Order: sequence, then structure tokens, then C-alpha cells
Amino acid sequence: MKVVDELKYDANGLVPAIIQEEGTGRVLMMAWMNKESLAKTIETRQTWFWSRSRKKFWLKGETSGHVQNVKNIAFDCDGDCLLITVEQVGAACHEGYKSCFFRSITGDETVKITEPKLVEPSTVYGKK
Amino acid sequence: MKVVDELKYDANGLVPAIIQEEGTGRVLMMAWMNKESLAKTIETRQTWFWSRSRKKFWLKGETSGHVQNVKNIAFDCDGDCLLITVEQVGAACHEGYKSCFFRSITGDETVKITEPKLVEPSTVYGKK
Repeated sequence: MKVVDELKYDANGLVPAIIQEEGTGRVLMMAWMNKESLAKTIETRQTWFWSRSRKKFWLKGETSGHVQNVKNIAFDCDGDCLLITVEQVGAACHEGYKSCFFRSITGDETVKITEPKLVEPSTVYGKK
Repeated sequence: MKVVDELKYDANGLVPAIIQEEGTGRVLMMAWMNKESLAKTIETRQTWFWSRSRKKFWLKGETSGHVQNVKNIAFDCDGDCLLITVEQVGAACHEGYKSCFFRSITGDETVKITEPKLVEPSTVYGKK
């Protein structure tokens, strides 16, 4: 049996996939995969996710060109979470930051932005 | 309003929390927090999670001594995922590995173990 068949998908058939940048170790984002999007990720070596709101597959970077080239796919002891190491082209975050985790909670429980914006989103996604 | 009140918890009141080791950048584990466990994490500077199966709070390391001392708490652009940087005492994984992500999917879709076991679980959790 293949590993993709043995993972523990949730009631909606999904597992969270943590995306980490090779080299820097920066955690870039978390998104959801189902068995089919994981199989497409393994096959194409680019990240495919399942959009819970749009109920469709999405290739990361399809619109922006900010694709993720897969270097390694790990899974956790419970078999219900993925850790995927990638080479990130451009910004992972749709808000234009390298990482979606560009904000932290400060000691007084307010918010600080911890990294510079790489690109203006309107230049890669078009104006709405 | 505090940040913990503004995050987007799922239908069960939970957000996934990715735990990353300070310094090495190793992603150690993923577990779930609700608003109260996040508040306890902020207050105590050690990681508290919500066990979905046991329906109770758990302090990471309460039995094993392998606690996580919190260094930073980030959250993603959608406000529905946490990235917590910690100093990890001992092994994060209950199977005795530093990281729960100690297995990877190989090119032929079999499994390889990618790191040495740090401790024998029976020595920290007792024999069952």
C-alpha cells in the first residue's frame, strides 16, 4: 500500500500541509491537501492543495507565478500532518510577504509585523 | 480587542499550532489550540494544547518533562494558523524523536526514517 493511502485524513478527507523553505527553514504557510492533491504534488513536484471554500484543486503559484518546487515530503508520527520542504519562487503569501506568518503577538498582546513586504500583491494578482 | 479574540477558530473552536525549534528551524510538531489554551500559552510561556480525543487541556511535557519554552508566537495572513517558536527540552515526539516529522516519503513512495531516535519512550513515559 502506498503512503498516501495510509495517512489519516480528517472527516473531510484532508490533512494540513506545513510548507517550509529549504535552506532558510522559514515556515511559509499551511494549507490543506486531500489524497488526490498529495498525489499530484508527488507526481508533479509542485504543491497542489485543496481549497475548502472553492472546493477545487489549486496549484500554488498558478496565478502569481510564485510556485513551490518540492524537495521533500515528511509526515508526522500520527500520520495526520505533512511537512513539505520547497524552493519558493517569489512570495508565498498572497499579501506579498515571503511567509504568511509575517505577524507576531507581542508581550502586551498587540501585533507586530516581523518582515518586509517582498512584492505588492496588485502587481502579481492584478487589480480587483 | 486582544489578538487571541480575533483569530479564526474552526467549527470546533480550534486552530492548528505549528511548533518550530528556535535556532535550528526544525519543525517539531503540529497540535491544536483553542482560545483558552492559547491564552495559557501566552501567560505561562509554555505550550498548552487542546486534546481533541480526550477533550482536555494538555501541557506539553507534563509527563515526560519535555516541555517547550515559548520564544515567539506568530499567526498567518488568514488568522487561522499559529507558528510558535520554542526552546525544546528533550524530544518533542512521543516516539522519542526530536521531531514528529521523522519520516519522509521517498521517490518510489515508500518511507524512510530521516533522524536518529533521541530517547526510548519507555524511559520517559513508563511501561504500559
